[in-house]
Amino acid sequence: MQRRDLLQKLLTVGSAAALSPKLLAAPAVSEGRVQWRMASSFPKSLDTIYGAGEMLANRVSLLTDGKFQIRVFAGNELVPALQVFDSVQNGTVECGHSASYYYVGKNKAFAFDTCLPFGLTARQQTAWYQRGGGRQLIQEFLRPYGVISFAGGNTGAQMGGWYRQPVRSLAELKGLKIRIPGIGGEIMSRIGALPQTIGGADIYPALERGAIDAAEWVGPYDDEKMGFYKVAKYYYFPGWWEAGPQLSFFVNAQAFLKLPRSWQIAFEVAASEAATLMLASYDAQNPQALIRLINQHQVRLMSFPEDMMKAAQKTAFDFYEEQAASNPAFAKLYRSWKPFRRMEGGWFNLAETSLENFMYKNASR
Amino acid sequence: MQRRDLLQKLLTVGSAAALSPKLLAAPAVSEGRVQWRMASSFPKSLDTIYGAGEMLANRVSLLTDGKFQIRVFAGNELVPALQVFDSVQNGTVECGHSASYYYVGKNKAFAFDTCLPFGLTARQQTAWYQRGGGRQLIQEFLRPYGVISFAGGNTGAQMGGWYRQPVRSLAELKGLKIRIPGIGGEIMSRIGALPQTIGGADIYPALERGAIDAAEWVGPYDDEKMGFYKVAKYYYFPGWWEAGPQLSFFVNAQAFLKLPRSWQIAFEVAASEAATLMLASYDAQNPQALIRLINQHQVRLMSFPEDMMKAAQKTAFDFYEEQAASNPAFAKLYRSWKPFRRMEGGWFNLAETSLENFMYKNASR
Repeated sequence: MQRRDLLQKLLTVGSAAALSPKLLAAPAVSEGRVQWRMASSFPKSLDTIYGAGEMLANRVSLLTDGKFQIRVFAGNELVPALQVFDSVQNGTVECGHSASYYYVGKNKAFAFDTCLPFGLTARQQTAWYQRGGGRQLIQEFLRPYGVISFAGGNTGAQMGGWYRQPVRSLAELKGLKIRIPGIGGEIMSRIGALPQTIGGADIYPALERGAIDAAEWVGPYDDEKMGFYKVAKYYYFPGWWEAGPQLSFFVNAQAFLKLPRSWQIAFEVAASEAATLMLASYDAQNPQALIRLINQHQVRLMSFPEDMMKAAQKTAFDFYEEQAASNPAFAKLYRSWKPFRRMEGGWFNLAETSLENFMYKNASR
Repeated sequence: MQRRDLLQKLLTVGSAAALSPKLLAAPAVSEGRVQWRMASSFPKSLDTIYGAGEMLANRVSLLTDGKFQIRVFAGNELVPALQVFDSVQNGTVECGHSASYYYVGKNKAFAFDTCLPFGLTARQQTAWYQRGGGRQLIQEFLRPYGVISFAGGNTGAQMGGWYRQPVRSLAELKGLKIRIPGIGGEIMSRIGALPQTIGGADIYPALERGAIDAAEWVGPYDDEKMGFYKVAKYYYFPGWWEAGPQLSFFVNAQAFLKLPRSWQIAFEVAASEAATLMLASYDAQNPQALIRLINQHQVRLMSFPEDMMKAAQKTAFDFYEEQAASNPAFAKLYRSWKPFRRMEGGWFNLAETSLENFMYKNASR
């Protein structure tokens, strides 16, 4: 059979099928195929975070027998990494994977969707978001942007970053140039440091030549790949500005509404699974990376001085009260978040950390 | 048009459609409908646990445009609550929602799928299961039973239970009749208590009339409904035998293999979401219930004495080593679980609880 004949035959079968009453009755998009683009804020090298987008796309495809395809683009591949939200908002892409706190320049209230300094742990953030009213408040906040969002993973508590010299007290923090963006940077500034906003690729050289004194990134698994241990040996904990940062899958609301119901659910359920697996990946991989950093790279673990922690926490909550007084969107979220945080703290202190502290202090054989 | 004519016309269209090459190519079951039954081990009154089965069923239905229906039956409604695994194994039901550690009578190794005393927290269990090799080992262990399983939620760390009188030391534990089943009961027995196995409905009367001295159940949200605070005022923490018990969705392997691939994925992804939301529900509701128990019911919170905790932990690990020496299935899982637990402990102690301890100790305004 000639190639042209074969094609003709396929086209004929196709036309007949397209005219059958069964197919005509079904919604066009349901019997059709949809191709979406997802802009990620993250480079492929951050495989644990970036990978969550790929996981979601893969599951959605499997759930829809391949009819709903999502192609994931790494940060800066299609749109600037820190403009993913804008790109979803204006429809350049149908969806994105990012962190809401990258967009605090638009409104500080974005931070509640990710984390605030001295805020919720990963489990507490999930509890607030999914069962404490957080999700509804965040969707209400995002509505004017024409964007809806789904929880998109969590890194767990991050590390406090890499310092070229030890910091023994709040006083020694004064004047240090520390790479730390966002509200964490704001708090650092108020307690005396000089926060710097530097893109991922530029941190290492700045740290190496001493243009900055310290830099925070994520945690052992991601930090190890950046090689910071070669130029700054003091690795501080805890990362009090990121106790449990939640990532987000953003979706253009109009695009979402065009999907058949079952595909909307497919996106939502796949997002939930990808979020769970991201945290599991970090929790499984961070300990191994930490051991390598200590044993192979002579990294020195250091805890932030108590007076600095106390000053930072007080400053953070002063900042939230200030914001709440002048920003109604922030105030609305804060009024839900703050008492929830307090209750969670009481409960986790009792049931969870009391047992964890015992187990971590009293090693079993 | 006569009704008969209309029917005839519809049937004709139906036949034509059934003969189209497109439809013949599709797997029969995919175009059909499937009705499954899920036996839960839990009563509807434990809405947080029981509800996870309903959530899964609802999502699977939505994901498959209503073609794959799962009807959930509460514990003892269809099959005995503690024989859910057996019912899935022998095909009485296609799937179940239960806890693997109910089946340690068959093999102690079942416990790794749920929890072991002084074991992993909820997050650590998820990390081990999903990204630490646990899932593969559990599936391998279950294969001879013809059952596959999916993580089916977690309660978070449970409470230590309700005591009629305070227990101030290990010595005072001696001879106390405590309702506590499974391996937790085994450890309690080895450190001097007299563990009792009593079904949920019979605990309250036994506690009321003093037939037992104490009883453990779940945590504040579930315990409150049981009313234990009326007959035993001392509420102990932490529940060291259940740091992060994971529930399971069991599926008859043959039934699962008959599903089209996209429905298998629907079940798996919906299970993951239900699991995440169960823990979020507990984390959101336990603190509120605890506050009610203290403020409205004058419950007294008590921590287990340190010497008892130490004796219990040592005894637990002695027990695991014993089991590993005589039970190859237990040994195989233990060899994965034990070093994973140790690494997680080091990491969480550093990054997570150091920050949590600071925040819970230093209340912000």
